[in-house]
Amino acid sequence: MALRALRPVVHSITNPVAISLAAGVLQAVGARPVMAQAPEELEEIVRGAAAVTINIGMPTAERAETMRLAAGLAHRHGRPWVLDPVGVGGSAYRRALAHTLIAERPAVIRANADEILVLAEIDRPLGGIGIDAETSADSALPAARALARRTGAVVAVTGTVDHLTDGVQFCAIANGHPMMTRVSGLGCALSCLVGAALAVETDPLAATVLALSLLGIAGEVAAETAPGPGSLPAAIVDALYALDRPTLERKAQLR
Amino acid sequence: MALRALRPVVHSITNPVAISLAAGVLQAVGARPVMAQAPEELEEIVRGAAAVTINIGMPTAERAETMRLAAGLAHRHGRPWVLDPVGVGGSAYRRALAHTLIAERPAVIRANADEILVLAEIDRPLGGIGIDAETSADSALPAARALARRTGAVVAVTGTVDHLTDGVQFCAIANGHPMMTRVSGLGCALSCLVGAALAVETDPLAATVLALSLLGIAGEVAAETAPGPGSLPAAIVDALYALDRPTLERKAQLR
Amino acid sequence: MALRALRPVVHSITNPVAISLAAGVLQAVGARPVMAQAPEELEEIVRGAAAVTINIGMPTAERAETMRLAAGLAHRHGRPWVLDPVGVGGSAYRRALAHTLIAERPAVIRANADEILVLAEIDRPLGGIGIDAETSADSALPAARALARRTGAVVAVTGTVDHLTDGVQFCAIANGHPMMTRVSGLGCALSCLVGAALAVETDPLAATVLALSLLGIAGEVAAETAPGPGSLPAAIVDALYALDRPTLERKAQLR
Repeated sequence: MALRALRPVVHSITNPVAISLAAGVLQAVGARPVMAQAPEELEEIVRGAAAVTINIGMPTAERAETMRLAAGLAHRHGRPWVLDPVGVGGSAYRRALAHTLIAERPAVIRANADEILVLAEIDRPLGGIGIDAETSADSALPAARALARRTGAVVAVTGTVDHLTDGVQFCAIANGHPMMTRVSGLGCALSCLVGAALAVETDPLAATVLALSLLGIAGEVAAETAPGPGSLPAAIVDALYALDRPTLERKAQLR
Repeated sequence: MALRALRPVVHSITNPVAISLAAGVLQAVGARPVMAQAPEELEEIVRGAAAVTINIGMPTAERAETMRLAAGLAHRHGRPWVLDPVGVGGSAYRRALAHTLIAERPAVIRANADEILVLAEIDRPLGGIGIDAETSADSALPAARALARRTGAVVAVTGTVDHLTDGVQFCAIANGHPMMTRVSGLGCALSCLVGAALAVETDPLAATVLALSLLGIAGEVAAETAPGPGSLPAAIVDALYALDRPTLERKAQLR
Repeated sequence: MALRALRPVVHSITNPVAISLAAGVLQAVGARPVMAQAPEELEEIVRGAAAVTINIGMPTAERAETMRLAAGLAHRHGRPWVLDPVGVGGSAYRRALAHTLIAERPAVIRANADEILVLAEIDRPLGGIGIDAETSADSALPAARALARRTGAVVAVTGTVDHLTDGVQFCAIANGHPMMTRVSGLGCALSCLVGAALAVETDPLAATVLALSLLGIAGEVAAETAPGPGSLPAAIVDALYALDRPTLERKAQLR
């Protein structure tokens, strides 16, 4: 696949829970992860990257400043970037951070249904601060469309079935395996994979479909042998590494 | 088990070595891990959690401040919390931090024998700053009892055999496998699991027995197939995910 | 092996991507990892350690200050220390940091060819900021020799074949497996393993040969069963744990 030939550098700012898995997922598909976060080196790093991904999980004042700088640099230098608003419903601090970042025009926002509902400011009782969605992805579709129209980003709501929209077109992907919801940091790694896809596919909707299909199918393959959520992440990285175009096309469940 | 039905949110402040494994262990038993550490969001996070766990490993000035705030918030809002005083013998800085945290009344202190001896301020030559105990758990029993009486916490001294006390009652658990001592961050993950147990079991001694039994038995099951300490953590998470009440009751080695 | 008998404490400052794997690798060979990074405790930690390793990946202002302090303390207290200049070509910030650290006289510098070329200030077009070398290790040999002579350190350039020099003697190691280049943090873990070897072997060249052979052979053994780069790191840790002196001597490909 193009990723393996081009080996794009993907600059990812992500949380400590997910960082190792995210780097592994990026390397498995041929991308070259760079996880830099010092303001002093951000301009060089962002300019040297083909895409940027920003995950607001476990924010600190220092990392939030890095996120704001990186989003601004990506916007200014024309690097497509992905926002992953992890746990945005959990605190006012994360909501404010996410809204500041959205002003720098992410190409893609990848989140679960609860997070999309919060970002779209749809009024509803929040379901808690856990990192996994309580809400099915399709119930967040109107919010996703509103968010996509307001921000210009492709919005991907991932869940049992993933739903994507650029505000006009819609697409659903039914790949994946239920055990994937028990793997910490897998959603964060998926957002990094969207960044890798953006580096080789200029249409953000097509890039997001590619990344979500890749991880979903890798999850299905991995779940055939992994006995539980502990061994699943390594098996997913193995499956991504082995995945070829024919398998991708045969197994993709696009609607 | 109750954890799988209730899916409690457990807020864990832990060190970067252990954070991914800790999140995996929590998710495997059905808990929802939140690893937030920004002072700006701590009050919302702690109030939204059923229990809090604080691990002093790899402290920084910033994370130490977060620990103090989180312990205070947990105490004030009535959330049971677990202290894991990793490497407390290694520096005066960690000793001071641990003592400040203890003033906020943890429900449980989980540590190895060396760490308990340091916390209890029993005068002895310190065995070094490594993260694994040189001292057997039962030799720290008098220190554990003194510490439990002084602090009001259940004190769990883990080792080949785990020893627990609330200052009056005593209990020993003989589950586990020697290879577990070679897995970085497993003790830290165990402290997070105690937090999950506190969320569903109000008696701290019973909760600690539950968590230590769960991890010990999962370690035994995992060691049947894992060829070494590299593959053991994933196998432990798999085993925790599959563990049911009958297996727990059949394999538990309580005294 | 001596590591298993002596169980040396190795103080490692490394990046968040690699930290868990680095700790696992150290524990697998019998070393006791300590990952402390607070300036307040560094003197006690460095003095209690047999060796120190410093990895400049993902620097922050805070961690860079810790690195400078730790390198100075290691130098002053006579603890051998290893420099891993991850991504030093990626930013002026990392180059300045690496040069400051080198002034504290590392015993060993372990890096890929691109990083060695940058450190040696050989004028060439830089190949990008990715974390894996684009350049073969032997093409960096003149730079490695110059760097070794200037700094007094053993310089190890790792790649398909690893090349080592103290500025006078040369040595090559042909162990390892291509899939190892796709494992995030494995080079960083290797630098920590060099630290462990320095704790039991006073000659830095011999210690580096030992560490590189250990990891290369463990990688070969692991690749026999691991189906991809996701399961490879755990298999490497398993193989390190099981590796004995006869296997090491039989499989070592030294030149």
